[in-house]
Amino acid sequence: MKLPNKILIVGLGLMGGSYADALSKKGYEVYALAHRQESLDFAVKNGLIKGGSTSVDEEFVSQFDLVVFALYPHTLIQWLEQYHSFLKPGAILTDVTGVKSSIIPGVSEIIKDDDVEFVFAHPMAGKEVYGVENADADIFKKANFIVTPTNSNKEESVQLIEELGREIGSYHVTRLTPELHDEMIAYVSQLAHVIAVSLMTAKDCDSLYEYTGNSFRDLTRIADINEDMWSELFLDNKETLLSQIDLFMDEMKKMREALDKGDVETMKSMMKLSSIRRRKFRS
Amino acid sequence: MKLPNKILIVGLGLMGGSYADALSKKGYEVYALAHRQESLDFAVKNGLIKGGSTSVDEEFVSQFDLVVFALYPHTLIQWLEQYHSFLKPGAILTDVTGVKSSIIPGVSEIIKDDDVEFVFAHPMAGKEVYGVENADADIFKKANFIVTPTNSNKEESVQLIEELGREIGSYHVTRLTPELHDEMIAYVSQLAHVIAVSLMTAKDCDSLYEYTGNSFRDLTRIADINEDMWSELFLDNKETLLSQIDLFMDEMKKMREALDKGDVETMKSMMKLSSIRRRKFRS
Repeated sequence: MKLPNKILIVGLGLMGGSYADALSKKGYEVYALAHRQESLDFAVKNGLIKGGSTSVDEEFVSQFDLVVFALYPHTLIQWLEQYHSFLKPGAILTDVTGVKSSIIPGVSEIIKDDDVEFVFAHPMAGKEVYGVENADADIFKKANFIVTPTNSNKEESVQLIEELGREIGSYHVTRLTPELHDEMIAYVSQLAHVIAVSLMTAKDCDSLYEYTGNSFRDLTRIADINEDMWSELFLDNKETLLSQIDLFMDEMKKMREALDKGDVETMKSMMKLSSIRRRKFRS
Repeated sequence: MKLPNKILIVGLGLMGGSYADALSKKGYEVYALAHRQESLDFAVKNGLIKGGSTSVDEEFVSQFDLVVFALYPHTLIQWLEQYHSFLKPGAILTDVTGVKSSIIPGVSEIIKDDDVEFVFAHPMAGKEVYGVENADADIFKKANFIVTPTNSNKEESVQLIEELGREIGSYHVTRLTPELHDEMIAYVSQLAHVIAVSLMTAKDCDSLYEYTGNSFRDLTRIADINEDMWSELFLDNKETLLSQIDLFMDEMKKMREALDKGDVETMKSMMKLSSIRRRKFRS
C-alpha cells in the first residue's frame, strides 16, 4: 500500500505540524491550510511543509489524493460543510480527533454523495504545549495509532491509513470499532484527565506543592490542560465518559470501605491485582 | 550542627540501604542491624556499611550517638520494646516512617524514662523496588525531607536531624507538625496510591494496556505496590486518609455533575484553576 506523494494537512497546530514534520522527513511533499499566515511561514521556514494557504480554494484543495484533518471536532464539521465539494474525486480523508462516535455521523452525512472516503483515525500522541512552533515528529514514536473503520470504508482505504500511521513513525498501529475506541479513550485518557484536574482543584495546593513527591507529580502531569479542547472532547464523549467515571468511583468506594472497616484482605487483594496488571505495561 | 561520625542504621531494606549509601559516600562510618546476613554481606561488599550484625546486643548498640530506624511502623515499636534499654544515654534517634500521628505516642511511651531523644522524620524518597540490593543514595536527590518535631524535642536535636537530611542530599529539608504532615501525606501520597490502584482494578486492563497513552502510564506508575507496607500505612493514617479520599471524590462528583448537565463553564473553570496550580510545580 503506497501513499500518494503529495499530502494536504488541514489545520496547522501541534498535531498538524507534527504530522507535517513526520511526513516531510519521510520525503513526502506536504502542503497545509492554516488560519494564520505566521503558522504557514514558520512551517515553510522550518521545512515542515513545501507551501500552503490561509484561504481555501478549489484549485488548491483538489490536487490532493490524501488529506489529513488536524482540527477540533466542530471545526472539522464546519470545514467540510463549507468546502467538501472542493475535494478531489477519489480522495481519502482522515482525521486526528480523540472521540469517534460523535463525529462519524456528522461527517458521513456531509460527504455521503461525494466520491471521497473518510477513514477515521486517532494518533494517540500529544504534548502539554500547543501550536505549530512546538510541532515534533517524535511525538508519534511512543504513540498508538488507532484506525476506527466504518461500514463505508473499503479494506484498501483502511490499509492506506494504517500505512500512514506507520509512515509517521507510530509505535503501534491497530484497529478498533468507533464504540470500543471511545470507551477505551474515555477510560485511559479522559478519566485520567478528570482525575488529574480534580486532584489539583480539590485542595489548595499552594501550601502543598513544596511537599509533593514523584507520585503526585506523576498523577498531575496532565493537569495543565487546554480547557477549550478538553471540555469539547468530554462533551463529545459524554455518556461513555460518565459511565467510566462511575466505574472508577465505585472502585474508589470499594477501597474506601475496606479501609474504613479495616478489611485488610480486600485492600491487599486490590493492591495485588493492581501490581500484577501494572507489571504488564511497558514503562 | 555536626553529626557524629559513627551512625547506626536499624533495618537494611531499600530505605536503610539508601541511607547507608548516602552517609558512607559522605565519609561517615555506617553500621547496620539487619534480619538477613546476606543483606549485611551485600552492604559491606558494596561499601554501604563498614559492618553490622543480625543479632542485637547492648555492647554493639550502645556505641552509637545517632540511630536511624528504617523499619515498618509496627516493627519499629517491637524493636524499641525489646531493646530500648541498650541505646546509649544521650543518643538521638530518628525514623523514616510515612505516617507520624500513629507512631509517635507508642514510641514516646516506650522511651519516656530513657535518656534518649527521638526526632521523627520522613524522607519522602522511594522506588518501586525493594531491598538493600536496590539501595541508591540518589533517591534522596529529588525528595523532600520532613522533620516533625514534638514537644519533647530540643531545638538542637531537631537541627541535628535537619542536618542529617541535608547530608544525605535531600532536595528540600523542612518542618511540619505531625498532624499537618499526615494530612499532606494522605493527600499527595496515599490518595495518589488509592487512585492508581483503583484505576488498575476497576476495569480489566488486559485488553486496554496496549492502548495506554503516556497519561494513563503516568497515573498508574505507582500502581505496582507493596501491599503489606501500603495497607499498613493506610491503616496507620486511616481517619485522615478517609477524609482526603472524600475531599477528592466530592471534587470528582462536581466535575461529573458539570459534564452530565453540560455545564461547560464549571468544567472550564476547574480546568483553568488546575492548570494555574500545576504550572507552579517543578517538572
